[in-house]
Amino acid sequence: MIEYKVIFHIDELNKWKLLLSNVSNLLKASDNNKYSVEVLANAEAVKYYAATQNLEADINLMEQLREKGVKFVACNNALTANNLLQKDLIHFVDIVPAGVAELIIKQSEGYAYIKP
Amino acid sequence: MIEYKVIFHIDELNKWKLLLSNVSNLLKASDNNKYSVEVLANAEAVKYYAATQNLEADINLMEQLREKGVKFVACNNALTANNLLQKDLIHFVDIVPAGVAELIIKQSEGYAYIKP
Amino acid sequence: MIEYKVIFHIDELNKWKLLLSNVSNLLKASDNNKYSVEVLANAEAVKYYAATQNLEADINLMEQLREKGVKFVACNNALTANNLLQKDLIHFVDIVPAGVAELIIKQSEGYAYIKP
Repeated sequence: MIEYKVIFHIDELNKWKLLLSNVSNLLKASDNNKYSVEVLANAEAVKYYAATQNLEADINLMEQLREKGVKFVACNNALTANNLLQKDLIHFVDIVPAGVAELIIKQSEGYAYIKP
Repeated sequence: MIEYKVIFHIDELNKWKLLLSNVSNLLKASDNNKYSVEVLANAEAVKYYAATQNLEADINLMEQLREKGVKFVACNNALTANNLLQKDLIHFVDIVPAGVAELIIKQSEGYAYIKP
Repeated sequence: MIEYKVIFHIDELNKWKLLLSNVSNLLKASDNNKYSVEVLANAEAVKYYAATQNLEADINLMEQLREKGVKFVACNNALTANNLLQKDLIHFVDIVPAGVAELIIKQSEGYAYIKP
């Protein structure tokens, strides 16, 4: 078993379905590897974390992925630009000050980068 | 001469023209470097590999790139989601179980990542 | 203070506003890190470098970023395809023969890759 790390980047609202499908498929891959997954949302994509805007089914899928260890992260610059506060977001979302800095730092730590 | 490795990621059907142009330009670059190129298609982009949906010209370009060593790969999850079997695809396409896993593993092996 | 390097990739004209916002936010991040930033434009995105096509405000923002060390680069294949010469471009834009080669070489040198 090999351990891999990956950060998925999303900045468009309409890519969430594809992204969640990508992450689900990755965790279902029967290749005996272990994948540490972080999802980093910036720009308009952070609006998806505001629970009231989502379908129940999507929240359920995100919660299932979260239980499998997937980390969901929001860019604080993007939250501010969209008038969103932490209390508006699904409870398990973490916040970083600058999403692009997070993408850079994680890659320097050996994370692969995927932009669906 | 330095040897570089790169994986191109495509998940949108309408990006194929741009992607094939990118790869062609790379192999024509007169910089004395050697580029090992893999093209990984997932999501709806795998439909491009179904020969009947392509223009003859595009298949010819892909075959020329293939002859220069470019590896064309399809995600099996995406094939299944699009009701495609290996026999439906251009003959030189390889299949991997999970496209996102391929993107991660290749990056861990030193491949650069490009998403046109 | 840690020094990080990043190359931003843009190939769609309509992504410039998002990209410049990303770069601005990165340089404003108060995390005590240092970020070396290169912006690599290929395909239709190089047209943004042709000064007459931009709003004054955008050029001002690019000049501010340039003064903070951001390097703006154009792919020569894309310039040729769009009938643009160096003299048509904002004066501080550098040109590389093949944009995709630049993306690969920079990643091999430890640059993170971000595609807004």
